[in-house]
Order: sequence, then structure tokens, then C-alpha cells
Amino acid sequence: MCSVISRVKPVQRALASTLRLRTNADGLNYAAAQSRRFCPGFITGAQPLWVTSRSYCARIATTDGLLFRQLFEVESSTYTYLLADADTKEAVIIDPVLETIDRDLKFVSELGLKLTVAVNTHCHADHITSTGLMKKRLAGLKSAISKFSGASADIHLKEGDKIPFGRHCLIVRETPGHTDGCITLVTGDQTMAFTGDALLIRGCGRTDFQQGCAKRLYKSVHEKIFTLPDECLLYPAHDYLGRMASSVGEERKFNPRLTKTMEEFADIMNNLNLPNPKKMATAVPANLVCGLQD
Amino acid sequence: MCSVISRVKPVQRALASTLRLRTNADGLNYAAAQSRRFCPGFITGAQPLWVTSRSYCARIATTDGLLFRQLFEVESSTYTYLLADADTKEAVIIDPVLETIDRDLKFVSELGLKLTVAVNTHCHADHITSTGLMKKRLAGLKSAISKFSGASADIHLKEGDKIPFGRHCLIVRETPGHTDGCITLVTGDQTMAFTGDALLIRGCGRTDFQQGCAKRLYKSVHEKIFTLPDECLLYPAHDYLGRMASSVGEERKFNPRLTKTMEEFADIMNNLNLPNPKKMATAVPANLVCGLQD
Repeated sequence: MCSVISRVKPVQRALASTLRLRTNADGLNYAAAQSRRFCPGFITGAQPLWVTSRSYCARIATTDGLLFRQLFEVESSTYTYLLADADTKEAVIIDPVLETIDRDLKFVSELGLKLTVAVNTHCHADHITSTGLMKKRLAGLKSAISKFSGASADIHLKEGDKIPFGRHCLIVRETPGHTDGCITLVTGDQTMAFTGDALLIRGCGRTDFQQGCAKRLYKSVHEKIFTLPDECLLYPAHDYLGRMASSVGEERKFNPRLTKTMEEFADIMNNLNLPNPKKMATAVPANLVCGLQD
Repeated sequence: MCSVISRVKPVQRALASTLRLRTNADGLNYAAAQSRRFCPGFITGAQPLWVTSRSYCARIATTDGLLFRQLFEVESSTYTYLLADADTKEAVIIDPVLETIDRDLKFVSELGLKLTVAVNTHCHADHITSTGLMKKRLAGLKSAISKFSGASADIHLKEGDKIPFGRHCLIVRETPGHTDGCITLVTGDQTMAFTGDALLIRGCGRTDFQQGCAKRLYKSVHEKIFTLPDECLLYPAHDYLGRMASSVGEERKFNPRLTKTMEEFADIMNNLNLPNPKKMATAVPANLVCGLQD
């Protein structure tokens, strides 16, 4: 067995050897010093994030005993999230899509999960939710959405509400602006947040229909999402470039819209001139009734 | 602040209340007993995995101080993986795609990473790798691929080789069968494995070209991947249904091909009659030279 390290150039070998010793050295300060010494950021351009914040990039999910799966629906580029307690098997699904209900329920069945709540981060305009149909197929399942969404559901959520699943929970933060009824769901330990369309990776949801308001969205993101810890991982409802997660620290530094002033942000958002989503005329009315419109 | 739990039906309230107490009770056996008592698997069909294996569903990545990002290239449905030491910023990229090089390098730059190795799990037939172009854009970056791939690279990998990045590493397991030079990359703590095309979620790579051999692939998966811990998360090179990760326990139980006998598996694989990948004629020659063919 031969380590690749023997085949790379001396400076890299020295670096790796030094850092391997770190596990026997006394703590993070030593590693940080070595890091600054050997890895001064060799790519020009934006100042690397670690210069100002070393904590942004943590492990992907730190919660012990949490099952977490991210799933993708390709037509609307929507992410669906499945979270479960690894011991009790109680599970929550976030933003499930009608087209992928069979895939999602197959996962639930195979993993032996007891899906108790299917929650939408808002009344979507670009796809139809599967929560209504899912309720027909899973006894005991409850649908949930913001009380300000205008949509029917078993549970109407508001600021601070908790959605428990086993020993874990999601806590509701109201983040209106894309729609009146947008919520961000934050895990109890604040290591993960599901931001819906309020905050996307290096972007955000549009604010030109469905009660959208750019200044309200700006306030929501800055007061309810950017106040989470820098290392909190962010999982949006969509991404159109194949990116799957971000972090509060990253978006606070690199989001091209939300790093602007509120006035600049509103100016950007009010001049996007985007066409309406293809499915809007059917999706919104359907999503007001859990996707089960006749 | 009002918990949603107050609005769900009594049996669920009892369950949640009971399980919340679990954190004050003595350990996992109690929780497991409660789980079996309250969540007996209410969906008919396949036997839930937890009946035979409770350990399959763990947190998504358990390694402390590891930055991990999964990225998607939509045309070829390829996953690219970026792993880095959160302290030293040394990073490795797995299976980067030519079309998404700008996105990937932007991440590297913004996160202040020092990308040292770009590794391909095999010589891909469905997309062109970006490792060659990436080397031109990042000083010091080395390309890596199996010594049995027939492809040129700075580092030729073989069984047991280690690719270190900071205090973490990837360890090579040779898993031929889809091609001669397929490798699976396993994190040092065996919590994650990047299986390339050897094992896909509920599937596997085809074995009808590029030195493919069904029986060899079967042996590779059973001897080199299914011998990892059940809770080890599996990250494939592709998925065509929006699924992003699986686990050894899940695939050992639910993979429709690999749960068969070797003879049955070979029979399935030898009768797939698939058309060749669209880009095969250009991708394979290009990938033999890090994607930089004239």
C-alpha cells in the first residue's frame, strides 16, 4: 500500500505531513496557524471566506441520529427534503412534488419511516405539491403550510411553531417577501435551514407576484436567516445550476443580491422582468388545496 | 410560541411526548423498543430496513471538520463531489465535468480552498472530464485516475492508495467491472464512499463496453463496497431520478440487481441492450488525456 503523498511534489508532501501531525498536536489553533502559513489562498479574485470567518464550512449535517435525504425534481428544479429520526423513524417531508410522489413514498417505505408531516415552505407557483395525494396514500399524515399562505392544510404554521419528529424538530421562521406565506424551517440545533424560495444559493425568489415585496424579503432574509450561525447549512427549494447546499456564512458574503443595501436590492428585484412560471396558472390554484384541485 | 404537537391527534401526541422523554431515558434500547411499539411499519410492501438493520440510517456525514459539497451536471446527470479540510482548506474534487468547470472553480475560489487533487472514478463514456482544463487554471493541481484506466494523469491510483487532504483522506478500492479502471473512494472513517459507476442508487453501471464484465462488477461490489459498514453513505457518479445518496445497508437490501445471485446478475446485465451513450465517441478518447484532446 503506497500513499499518493509519496508521489507529489516536496512542498505538498511537507504540508500534508505537517497537517497529519496535527491530530497529535494540541487543538485547532495549531492547525489554523499551519493553515494560514501553508494555504494563503492561491486563487486571485474574491477574498476567500475563511479570512474573515473560519467557521463557515463545517460538516454537512452535525445532528446525531438524524436521517437526511435531499431529492430533486428535474422539470421544476425543485428540491424535496426528507428528515427522520434514525431511532423512532418519525419523519417529515418538505416540499414534495406531485411528479415524484412514487419515488418519495418508495424511500419512505423502504427505510421503514413513519411520515407524520408533509410541509410546504410556501404556496408554490412552479410545480404542484404532492401533499394532498400523499395524505390519501399514507394514513395519519398531516399537511402543513403557513397560516399566511391562504392555502388549506391540516396544520397552519406561524413564527416559532415546532414540527417535532422523534427527538428532533423543525422550528418555523416566517420569511415573507417572495409570498406572504413563506417560511424557513430550521432544525432545533440550527445546523440546517430549509429556506424555500426566500433565499436561494447566490440568489433569491422573485418578488413580482403572489404578494411579493422586495423590501419585505430583504428584511426577512437579514433578520431571520442571516442571524443564524455562519456554519448553518442552507437548503433552498430550487437551484438551477446543480448546486445543492450553501451556508449562512457563504450567502452573507457572496449572495450577489442580498449583500446589497435594501434600496439596491429592491431596485434589482423590481427590474428583473421575468416571464411567469410555465405552470403558474394551474399550480397556484392547485397548491391552495394541497395539490388536489379537480 | 405554540408547538404543532398540540394540534395533532392524541396517538401522535403520545408518541411524540414519549419519544421526547427518550433523551432523558437510558440509551438506545429504550428508544428502539418505543420505536417498534409505536411505528410498526404502516406501509405494506417490502420489509422496512430497520427490522433487520437499525444502523443504516445515520446522519449524512459524520466526519468533524469536513467540508462536503455535492454538485450536479444536468446533461449527463453526473455528480461532482468537493471535499475539503475545514481547517487547512486542502481539497479534492471527484469527477468534475467540463461543462461545469466555471461553477466548480467559483466555489473553490469563494470558499478559499486549495484544490490539490482532481480525481476521476474511471474513464467516463458519457461526459468529458474537466481535470485537464482545471489543471491549466489552478497551479499545483494534480489529476488522478486508476492505473488500470489506460488514461494519462499525474497520479495513477491502485488498491489501498491514499489521497490526503488536510487531516482527512480518501482511500482507493479497486472496483472494476463497469470498466477495467473503476475505483471507489472511501473516506478514512468509512462514513462515505464515492462509487463512480460501479454502484448506483438501486442500480449499477452497464458492463457491455469499455472492458465491462458483469461477473467482475458483481464481485467488486460484493467484496469492496458491501463489506463497508451498513451506515456508510454511498455517493454515485450518476442518478437519473433525482436521488442523491444511498447507504451500504440500503443497497445490500434493496438494489434490484446486486441482491441477485452472480449468475442472475450477469444474465440481467448481458441482456440490457442499451444504446451507446451519446457522447461516447468523443468522451472516451478525450478522457484518456484528462479531457484535453485536440
